[in-house]
Amino acid sequence: MAEPQYELLYHPGIPGRGEFIRLMFEAAGVKYADVARDNPPDESGPNGYGLVQAITSPESTGDDDGNPPAFAPPALRIHGAGKNGKALLIHQTPNILLYLGGPLKLAGSDEPEKYYVNQLALTALDLNNETHDTHHPVAVMKYYEEQKDEALKKATDFRENRLPKFFSYFERVLKHNKSTGKGKHLVGESLTYADLALWQVIDGLKFAFPNEMRHRSSESPLLFDHFYPSLKDEPWLKKYLDSKRRQPYSMGVFRHYPELDLQ
Amino acid sequence: MAEPQYELLYHPGIPGRGEFIRLMFEAAGVKYADVARDNPPDESGPNGYGLVQAITSPESTGDDDGNPPAFAPPALRIHGAGKNGKALLIHQTPNILLYLGGPLKLAGSDEPEKYYVNQLALTALDLNNETHDTHHPVAVMKYYEEQKDEALKKATDFRENRLPKFFSYFERVLKHNKSTGKGKHLVGESLTYADLALWQVIDGLKFAFPNEMRHRSSESPLLFDHFYPSLKDEPWLKKYLDSKRRQPYSMGVFRHYPELDLQ
Repeated sequence: MAEPQYELLYHPGIPGRGEFIRLMFEAAGVKYADVARDNPPDESGPNGYGLVQAITSPESTGDDDGNPPAFAPPALRIHGAGKNGKALLIHQTPNILLYLGGPLKLAGSDEPEKYYVNQLALTALDLNNETHDTHHPVAVMKYYEEQKDEALKKATDFRENRLPKFFSYFERVLKHNKSTGKGKHLVGESLTYADLALWQVIDGLKFAFPNEMRHRSSESPLLFDHFYPSLKDEPWLKKYLDSKRRQPYSMGVFRHYPELDLQ
Repeated sequence: MAEPQYELLYHPGIPGRGEFIRLMFEAAGVKYADVARDNPPDESGPNGYGLVQAITSPESTGDDDGNPPAFAPPALRIHGAGKNGKALLIHQTPNILLYLGGPLKLAGSDEPEKYYVNQLALTALDLNNETHDTHHPVAVMKYYEEQKDEALKKATDFRENRLPKFFSYFERVLKHNKSTGKGKHLVGESLTYADLALWQVIDGLKFAFPNEMRHRSSESPLLFDHFYPSLKDEPWLKKYLDSKRRQPYSMGVFRHYPELDLQ
């Protein structure tokens, strides 16, 4: 069997930012290697996470295929797509989603839609980043327990001010596209990577802030009663969520600290 | 004279995230309308900022040209580029830079470079966002003075851990591209929007954290002795910086609070 053309390089053991990329492959039914997830250190053969760490090493000035260094995971290697037929290595989650949108046919049906999809995915990723900051408001390299007082303040502001702002926005985008997308799609009449990114963030928020999400759900009916469940019912997504490829939420972006949730 | 094809919709009075877009037009020598900056409320005629606020109104479900609502400024209106020949309205800073990269010829010379440029601009914009969070670590809608204790902690971590990580990364990208870019360009042999985005963030950091930036400058010689000054010496940029179109730093992303700087 031929090697997959696409290699995802990301931390093992969490959905994290890699999940936005995995969902695109899963939705399109396209094979991909998940280098660290598929090659754990306790098996024979190469340790996949070592390869992930190598591309983001603080000493790296690029790889053997002529690609510049990557700032942080996730990165994507695409065999044959680089300069002189070598592998292309790209990083930054939104850049990877943009790259895959065309070949996986998840980027809308024309030029305006391509940019609508991209701006909505970027907005969902901003919400993802703000979620991360609720448990790490001061220092990304320190433990949550070392910044708990600040996290309580940050999470309160996030729940009370930021979540309603984001949810109201996505609700209005669904309303704008309702005659075409039927409340199931943010842009046009079929699935795009903006839908996948937003679905993943909502799914993670339901894990991290279950009380707050129950409290908010009636405020954005298209988003919570149509968009989220109808995508979750898609056969490909059900199958993926039941597979071992879907990793559980744990100590990544989406963490369930009850004290940060609505009391 | 014909109306400019491009309209930037952004807050007046600060460089902010709009500056990344302005620099692209200025570098390419392409005319653009800066709706709020050019139509202040005290002059006769329309108040430009009202138009900016309208597109991001929390009630909006889209504009009269069929575009979905925008989450936040900046946004860009491109006449004739939308569906059925109407105006296209897009938002999200990285999406706007991506859109303009092609027509303004600031996105590299081939497909791999297009994605290298995009990932580097995204990384510069991440640094921009982290800078903002130094004075607003807890609540974006509250005053700095209400979150000063947290800001002192956040700014310390930012200066000691995040700045060196970002600067080391960009230094290594410049090293990777040195034979082609001569320390002047991150990707290839000519100016891209990644160069402009990084230049703007460094310029803002020099305003916000002058002590820290002096302290760090010797650690990344390509970045601080070649890249930053050589772009600043470009005639188009000198002319722009001397013009009234360049707004001074004040209460935007880049703020000079001496207590947050290296003591």
